[in-house]
Amino acid sequence: MTRLVEVRSRILKENDVLARGLRDRFQQAGVCVISFVSSPGSGKTTFLEKLMFRLSPRHRIAALVGDLATENDAARLSRACTQVRQITTGTICHLDAKMIDKALEGWRLEDLDFLFIENVGNLVCPSGYDLGEQVRVVLLSATEGEDKPLKYPTIFNTADVALITKIDLAAAAEFDREAAHRSILSVRPGMKVLEVSAKTGEGMDETEALFESLLAPA
Amino acid sequence: MTRLVEVRSRILKENDVLARGLRDRFQQAGVCVISFVSSPGSGKTTFLEKLMFRLSPRHRIAALVGDLATENDAARLSRACTQVRQITTGTICHLDAKMIDKALEGWRLEDLDFLFIENVGNLVCPSGYDLGEQVRVVLLSATEGEDKPLKYPTIFNTADVALITKIDLAAAAEFDREAAHRSILSVRPGMKVLEVSAKTGEGMDETEALFESLLAPA
Repeated sequence: MTRLVEVRSRILKENDVLARGLRDRFQQAGVCVISFVSSPGSGKTTFLEKLMFRLSPRHRIAALVGDLATENDAARLSRACTQVRQITTGTICHLDAKMIDKALEGWRLEDLDFLFIENVGNLVCPSGYDLGEQVRVVLLSATEGEDKPLKYPTIFNTADVALITKIDLAAAAEFDREAAHRSILSVRPGMKVLEVSAKTGEGMDETEALFESLLAPA
Repeated sequence: MTRLVEVRSRILKENDVLARGLRDRFQQAGVCVISFVSSPGSGKTTFLEKLMFRLSPRHRIAALVGDLATENDAARLSRACTQVRQITTGTICHLDAKMIDKALEGWRLEDLDFLFIENVGNLVCPSGYDLGEQVRVVLLSATEGEDKPLKYPTIFNTADVALITKIDLAAAAEFDREAAHRSILSVRPGMKVLEVSAKTGEGMDETEALFESLLAPA
């Protein structure tokens, strides 16, 4: 196993260097880059679609979407925004900085206010890969259970904001909101936590305001 | 990347050899080994707990449970069965045959009818690691969305049975059952698919009967 660990360390280091370069480019271009990580099925795409519909009248937006297979998510998101690209990873369980760099080819970052990056649905592996994003958002759906942050601490540790999605299903799923907040805060004290429902719109105003507050002053 | 791929291939090959040895041991001992894979939060532990409560009056059962951190799942499962061990993987996103081999130390396999293995919640990485199991079950919850099999085809391809869990939440989540079955069968034609709810008990009789049918004749 030692050799694998060494090679992995080297690859992670290469990723960090590349991610730093991306971060510099994003900052110089004045684009706010937000990435989203979660389990499969926690509602990343639906949330993003709704968010982009809200932001697009006032802001210039693009999105990158990672999946092992299919271009379904890009097709869904392109209803809300014209600049969307799917990154199909094959058997790779996460996005990395190189994939982002490649997917951006031909886009003028200066013409964007927001770039959203939806990672592959996976609560483990994406945590180790910096994508050069300004803010990383972890989503946890009300149907997944309150203890997920305790069981997948690394991904919550590397994120800046937690969104509890599908909050409209909280009662049906017997979701314990207080326990969920406690779990998140025990793993990442002081983390910003918002409850949202893409379906009913609950919490969407607050989330939109939070993201707009991250934009560089014009 | 070439070197990483080579090292990964070697590690996967070592895992296959070890898994084959485990499979032989399980067969000789006459224990039916069933593993469970799914996203985080699809209800593996709740389902297993209910299943084990049903099977334990008539069968001798043990369980291994994988998680990055915490021993919560082992504590929950030990209410239904006395022989439970947690495998804590740290940052590793899947179980492998070596971990199974080590976790079995001191257990007499001959004294067991069923050994259940709950993998780390991850729809990607566990697919590549044979654990020597007789049957691999993939769980997909009604709240995750119908397209998950299309987006994570490998894990569905390597599984033998699909369980659609939390079927009691189907209406609230606007889950399209037919689309889900279609997705599963398009990725893995002929796959056995059952709908279950650990909460209401729906589908549990059928699942129990399916697993009992796998036992070697006494």
